[in-house]
Amino acid sequence: MIVILKHNPNRDQLESLISWLQEKGIIIHTSVGEAHTILGLVGDTSKLDIDLIAALDIVDDVKRVQEPYKNANRKFHPEDTVIQVGNTQIGGGTLTIMAGPCSVESEDQVVAIAKAVKASGATMLRGGAFKPRTSPYSFQGLGPVGLEYLKAARAETGLPIVTELMDLSQLPLFKDVDVIQIGARNMQNFDLLKAVGHQDKPVMIKRGMSATYEEWLMSAEYVMAGGNENVILCERGIRTFESYTRNTLDLAAIPVLRKLTHLPIIIDPSHATGKSWLVEPLAMGAVATGADGLQIEVHNDPAHALCDGPQSLKPEVFDPLAKKLLKLHEMLKTLEG
Amino acid sequence: MIVILKHNPNRDQLESLISWLQEKGIIIHTSVGEAHTILGLVGDTSKLDIDLIAALDIVDDVKRVQEPYKNANRKFHPEDTVIQVGNTQIGGGTLTIMAGPCSVESEDQVVAIAKAVKASGATMLRGGAFKPRTSPYSFQGLGPVGLEYLKAARAETGLPIVTELMDLSQLPLFKDVDVIQIGARNMQNFDLLKAVGHQDKPVMIKRGMSATYEEWLMSAEYVMAGGNENVILCERGIRTFESYTRNTLDLAAIPVLRKLTHLPIIIDPSHATGKSWLVEPLAMGAVATGADGLQIEVHNDPAHALCDGPQSLKPEVFDPLAKKLLKLHEMLKTLEG
Amino acid sequence: MIVILKHNPNRDQLESLISWLQEKGIIIHTSVGEAHTILGLVGDTSKLDIDLIAALDIVDDVKRVQEPYKNANRKFHPEDTVIQVGNTQIGGGTLTIMAGPCSVESEDQVVAIAKAVKASGATMLRGGAFKPRTSPYSFQGLGPVGLEYLKAARAETGLPIVTELMDLSQLPLFKDVDVIQIGARNMQNFDLLKAVGHQDKPVMIKRGMSATYEEWLMSAEYVMAGGNENVILCERGIRTFESYTRNTLDLAAIPVLRKLTHLPIIIDPSHATGKSWLVEPLAMGAVATGADGLQIEVHNDPAHALCDGPQSLKPEVFDPLAKKLLKLHEMLKTLEG
Amino acid sequence: MIVILKHNPNRDQLESLISWLQEKGIIIHTSVGEAHTILGLVGDTSKLDIDLIAALDIVDDVKRVQEPYKNANRKFHPEDTVIQVGNTQIGGGTLTIMAGPCSVESEDQVVAIAKAVKASGATMLRGGAFKPRTSPYSFQGLGPVGLEYLKAARAETGLPIVTELMDLSQLPLFKDVDVIQIGARNMQNFDLLKAVGHQDKPVMIKRGMSATYEEWLMSAEYVMAGGNENVILCERGIRTFESYTRNTLDLAAIPVLRKLTHLPIIIDPSHATGKSWLVEPLAMGAVATGADGLQIEVHNDPAHALCDGPQSLKPEVFDPLAKKLLKLHEMLKTLEG
Repeated sequence: MIVILKHNPNRDQLESLISWLQEKGIIIHTSVGEAHTILGLVGDTSKLDIDLIAALDIVDDVKRVQEPYKNANRKFHPEDTVIQVGNTQIGGGTLTIMAGPCSVESEDQVVAIAKAVKASGATMLRGGAFKPRTSPYSFQGLGPVGLEYLKAARAETGLPIVTELMDLSQLPLFKDVDVIQIGARNMQNFDLLKAVGHQDKPVMIKRGMSATYEEWLMSAEYVMAGGNENVILCERGIRTFESYTRNTLDLAAIPVLRKLTHLPIIIDPSHATGKSWLVEPLAMGAVATGADGLQIEVHNDPAHALCDGPQSLKPEVFDPLAKKLLKLHEMLKTLEG
Repeated sequence: MIVILKHNPNRDQLESLISWLQEKGIIIHTSVGEAHTILGLVGDTSKLDIDLIAALDIVDDVKRVQEPYKNANRKFHPEDTVIQVGNTQIGGGTLTIMAGPCSVESEDQVVAIAKAVKASGATMLRGGAFKPRTSPYSFQGLGPVGLEYLKAARAETGLPIVTELMDLSQLPLFKDVDVIQIGARNMQNFDLLKAVGHQDKPVMIKRGMSATYEEWLMSAEYVMAGGNENVILCERGIRTFESYTRNTLDLAAIPVLRKLTHLPIIIDPSHATGKSWLVEPLAMGAVATGADGLQIEVHNDPAHALCDGPQSLKPEVFDPLAKKLLKLHEMLKTLEG
Repeated sequence: MIVILKHNPNRDQLESLISWLQEKGIIIHTSVGEAHTILGLVGDTSKLDIDLIAALDIVDDVKRVQEPYKNANRKFHPEDTVIQVGNTQIGGGTLTIMAGPCSVESEDQVVAIAKAVKASGATMLRGGAFKPRTSPYSFQGLGPVGLEYLKAARAETGLPIVTELMDLSQLPLFKDVDVIQIGARNMQNFDLLKAVGHQDKPVMIKRGMSATYEEWLMSAEYVMAGGNENVILCERGIRTFESYTRNTLDLAAIPVLRKLTHLPIIIDPSHATGKSWLVEPLAMGAVATGADGLQIEVHNDPAHALCDGPQSLKPEVFDPLAKKLLKLHEMLKTLEG
Repeated sequence: MIVILKHNPNRDQLESLISWLQEKGIIIHTSVGEAHTILGLVGDTSKLDIDLIAALDIVDDVKRVQEPYKNANRKFHPEDTVIQVGNTQIGGGTLTIMAGPCSVESEDQVVAIAKAVKASGATMLRGGAFKPRTSPYSFQGLGPVGLEYLKAARAETGLPIVTELMDLSQLPLFKDVDVIQIGARNMQNFDLLKAVGHQDKPVMIKRGMSATYEEWLMSAEYVMAGGNENVILCERGIRTFESYTRNTLDLAAIPVLRKLTHLPIIIDPSHATGKSWLVEPLAMGAVATGADGLQIEVHNDPAHALCDGPQSLKPEVFDPLAKKLLKLHEMLKTLEG
């Protein structure tokens, strides 16, 4: 951490800052310039409160050199994290395809879709029982019954299930779920993050609509600080001025996170774009950019889906896409080294 | 609502759409053009699921004419909402000044600040007991004890208290709070919104960092749909590309919301900018733009505040500011017709 | 175009609007609802000034149904545009790789890079003679001499050259250039767009940092309205709140533009990210998403480049990347039906 | 400037960097930490190319401490700049009100508006002769004839005129204009900035839609580096995800620029919002936040304005607003110490 002092800092305050830092085991290097004096702080600064230092009268600015996360940081954990889920894994060279309906509507629906997507090559079933909807008048999901339908589909197909937890009060219902999804709107619901950090199911954290990479990794850090190291990151588009697509899918997230963290990275082109005809080209792009997997909405009757219809693919459209994605993933391996 | 059909829509599907809409009591006006056929939907479309219609194969685009919120809509509630809190009110021509520390640290601290801000003209005490922090390693607030200290400060000064609820499991602790604050990161925590909609304390909803006016009003609608009409909206800056300030304070929110809704509007310049020296000019701007009130961070020792120090004012800086704001508010009345 | 009238519009004003529209050959369909009357305008509305109508006292809102561009619109020109440049082409199934230094520094430098990138598979040479720099104190490019060096490199290698025109006064110097590049900062320099529309060299328009797809296509329309149909679009990242990368590369632009326009689409991962280690994964992603080509910065000594060093690849890093991109492009063809 | 080196930097490269910096008169302070070595550069770093240093293999990151602009920097020019224009001044405690039509349409129109706005208290006449329009099919302004009409209005009223220059080829026509306006879309048209820096008329630079404060000040620096110190900055809204208003007016720009620069700051609420009913509240807010002036669109027949009608006020609406703004400006003085 670098602390830039104001011109002619008060000596007593400066000494008090220096001794406070030294008490915390920080070593300080001072550079005295004409316009500024700069303190270079050396040691474990990840737990120093940057705001506290910036608030001091004598301080002009504080700049971090070290990342503020430890558990999620590749520097301290160079190996890729691979997460075992049922008979499949996420990360480690596998292309995970999570497919299924936005919203679980009936047992028949979800079982039919699960069978279809499995046949096409999907390795996990996704589906929402608790649905975050902008309007209180929109369908809010089937709730606990929806979870039962998902489990029935798992029993039929063997596909592990990933589904969204909206509030920590629902956590007991998620005991038999395979991967707990934290939605974009809850990415900084810190009580929820702490709660899933204190249980052992894998947790997939969707990026908040206006979250920086660092904030997203700090949310992973919340879960990991609780003891749960099985965290997956899912990019689903960020909010920008462009309104033609629902959000702007940020594929640079893949290589950037690959450098910053050891956690696996999934891409959701369905929510990112909000348009089903954009799913294929962006899913292809995500695989070629190096994603560990995709989350894709598939619905057997998009025109009657209870939510998010425009972004769902029909199984007959998903089938060739899934096969194409898996072939591309194989072909890319032949291009390496 | 306007539905723009694709060229040469399938006749059966079109008839099925029309009869589905008619069943819902919607009247349909059809304009047949060369390139497009347009359906004008007349009636109560606020509860039609726009996504469902947009998903149909025959539909090219759907555009709303009516706002998707009812309870929060000024069209259906032309009078300004005025909220009584203790011996003060929010809205209705009053300038509410909510002041206090970002984070409650001790009884002495919060009582001292409460006395100071009351003497300067503040009408409510703000302070956080449960704190949403980006890092799991930052101070997370005193929790229930913090609420007790706030109540002690209220007992000493008579100032009503406003404090943040982070999770619905904490709701029982908030029975004796005057205004429940929903933070920006929880603006779309829909379970939390529903919970505060089913109790009767006033609720102040901070705008999410990337929330549109409509989404923000939909969050108010969630609370109001539960029966609680005492909703206050608080603008605290939105996230943009400009990083010199923490967020970009959007003062246009004041007149825009004034037109769209009857709910009172508070501005928080402290969090919006993240810099204490920007609080005064933007607080002045907010009052002149027509805000119903301000939320301002005041701390007796910003340099040792446990969070968000750089944006806090000392009581001796807050005192002339509060007086200036109240004078400006009075003077502005003399400028009206 | 759809015109939503205010409640109880003034009859005289409404009749005046209707007759004004009819004079322009527009047919009007009226839907009278309880809350709103809606006019559906049918005919060629692309040249109606939407602002003029929206300004009328009786009008609540105006919504476009038709796109405001004609020449660039795929609806009126379903075939892909293929642009012949020297002995190569842009569009039509080719993968164009434009490579070269950000800034031309010397004849030796640009000739050496041109030879290297040609050997690796690049089909065009890019390089800046006139450089838009944020600071007046940064190197501004070699100017006319730089253009001569580019031509020398073309003479040696046969690679056509693409280079940026910053002001219309420089246009006479660009007579012997193969493709004229309009930079992101000049995307709405309308006098410049008109000028390049009145000459016949192909023009590549980079997307402005905060330009919507529609605005970008309107800039293409400016050039095409002048008679020059040889327009190429280049996505180079948009400005968002995320500051880890210089900009956010929007790969959804590829399929979206593919639908809206017939013009070829190039991706520039170097400027989009500002970091050379992000070029490879995003270039791979761009090819798999369906780009017609890439623009990549290559420099023989990035550490001493006069501008934009951090985003440049060395020739020995570019070589395997170019080969990998071309192989990927071939392999993708085998995945198509 | 602070240079953060990678772990175990190559010694030869480090020595070469250090001697290169020392040749430029920079003094270097080195802090050797466990994870990082940090170089603190002291001296005039404003002309060091930050990209060049960041590109070095041994460098992990570079952070600026000093601002990259000198002439526009308040640190080196503590006094407010006051610009004399005709018989009025911009800055120095005056409230400048620039009013007039978006687009000059006829001599009668502009003379009539000039008389009206002068009577209401405006101190300058604004009006566009050259108009930047998104569509090539929209009215592009009257050009040179429009400038003549503006001069006729000045002759009648004595109001100095401010009008937009779109291309440097038009500069000879602007010899008799009082203030040259550089539009938001041309904020980084560097050839244009250089051209107006080499003449002596005051130049008002509008903020680009996605320009940071620093980039905006660098554009001022371009003009000032050419010798023209009479620069005015005009905030006109930035582009964000919120689309209800055309742009988001950033009033924090006023106090931020006040700290960073000595140049006067004008606010344009008309373009920022795109809605005439938002002009009054935001103009009031701008004055109370401390703006040096306002630019407001006034049109005698907004419904038939050839461009940007929805944001124009009629003279009878502008009249009480201008008087109110001037009164507010006076009253604010009474609130100061």
